[in-house]
Amino acid sequence: MPMKIAVFGTGVVGQVMAEKLSSLGHEVMIGTRDVKGALAKTAPDNFGRPGFADWYKAHTAIRLGTYAETAAFGSFLVNASSGNGSLALLEQAGEANLSGKVMLDIANPLDFSKGMPPSLFICNTDSLGEQIQRAHPSLKVVKSLNTMNAQIMVNPSLIPGDHNVFVCGNDADAKSRVKEVLKSFGWKEKSIIDLGDISTARGTEQLLPIWIRLWGALKNPMFNFHIATA
Amino acid sequence: MPMKIAVFGTGVVGQVMAEKLSSLGHEVMIGTRDVKGALAKTAPDNFGRPGFADWYKAHTAIRLGTYAETAAFGSFLVNASSGNGSLALLEQAGEANLSGKVMLDIANPLDFSKGMPPSLFICNTDSLGEQIQRAHPSLKVVKSLNTMNAQIMVNPSLIPGDHNVFVCGNDADAKSRVKEVLKSFGWKEKSIIDLGDISTARGTEQLLPIWIRLWGALKNPMFNFHIATA
Repeated sequence: MPMKIAVFGTGVVGQVMAEKLSSLGHEVMIGTRDVKGALAKTAPDNFGRPGFADWYKAHTAIRLGTYAETAAFGSFLVNASSGNGSLALLEQAGEANLSGKVMLDIANPLDFSKGMPPSLFICNTDSLGEQIQRAHPSLKVVKSLNTMNAQIMVNPSLIPGDHNVFVCGNDADAKSRVKEVLKSFGWKEKSIIDLGDISTARGTEQLLPIWIRLWGALKNPMFNFHIATA
Repeated sequence: MPMKIAVFGTGVVGQVMAEKLSSLGHEVMIGTRDVKGALAKTAPDNFGRPGFADWYKAHTAIRLGTYAETAAFGSFLVNASSGNGSLALLEQAGEANLSGKVMLDIANPLDFSKGMPPSLFICNTDSLGEQIQRAHPSLKVVKSLNTMNAQIMVNPSLIPGDHNVFVCGNDADAKSRVKEVLKSFGWKEKSIIDLGDISTARGTEQLLPIWIRLWGALKNPMFNFHIATA
């Protein structure tokens, strides 16, 4: 069923999510702090990807707005922002535009300020997912997809064989809605592991330290975690 | 090639490691803080396993000693203790008994003091593996096997299909010696992922938060991480 979907964040995760959701027939608006600034980004990013302005021109079905406009537009929200900007953007989005909605939260609390590899600016006894949920109790936060490369998020068949995606959240209906979106991306029911309430996001966000080191060891970001069982 | 192996810790991980290494023909001594106390443990543990005294009686080829005696005995060391006791036991083992030796470090910095599920008492910008290595620069610390149930550590075929074990350490020769031990347990060369130096133990120790929650979600500890690649 087509939805109006708000994607927060104009980086690679936001672009990939917006493209995929749009291709599946949803109406998509992508949200940014600074619309003019985003439209001025013509230089390629650090990974050699085209600037946001060029990407946006090439995706005419996707709208662009401020965080507040985008949140107001969407009946389903996706947080694809950098973790260190997530709380501020939701503040800008405005409580009235968030209240009662489901938000798929893909952000990770990566701290690049102390050099590479990044550490986490929240971990162990708290998580970004929980901080977002506490700051916005009326928002139904579901942490998912944050444990893999963006291309794999929306196209799990890029990795052959079984591999998993985790969902964490307090609201069962919200998790069901996120699972439907995951299935529309190609995730099989049996590959989706519901870890429990939003505090279990501590587990998935703390996968990032090994994810980053596996990227280094394997020299390739195209991998995912599979939970092999007896 | 049979070795003299010191296993620190009389809990389930220590018992399973000592049993397996002994069955492979190594001479094994298991180390404890308090030999008399260990031999007085006849009550089953929280998991219903027989007390250490009964286990020890049933494994006549395995010796028992203080940490210092055990470290002096072993040419290859295994830290199978609780993470919160690891630094103290190595202190008791004595620098002269550790110097120049390889130690397979299986301990995790689990903090049970704040209730369940446990958090980590070291994480993010440091790890227990690094703390042990810094405290004993002449010891060759290799973190491995700490990301799975003890039964799987020594019998990877309990989980069908591909799944992985990680090694982290500063010394290439020490990692090779640990890999030989892993292979003797049944780990395939291709299943062993060398993540890099001992700082990469931050990645493997931070798998514990999701490991614990997966145990809850799957209602079974018999699973392991597999890194699925393209």
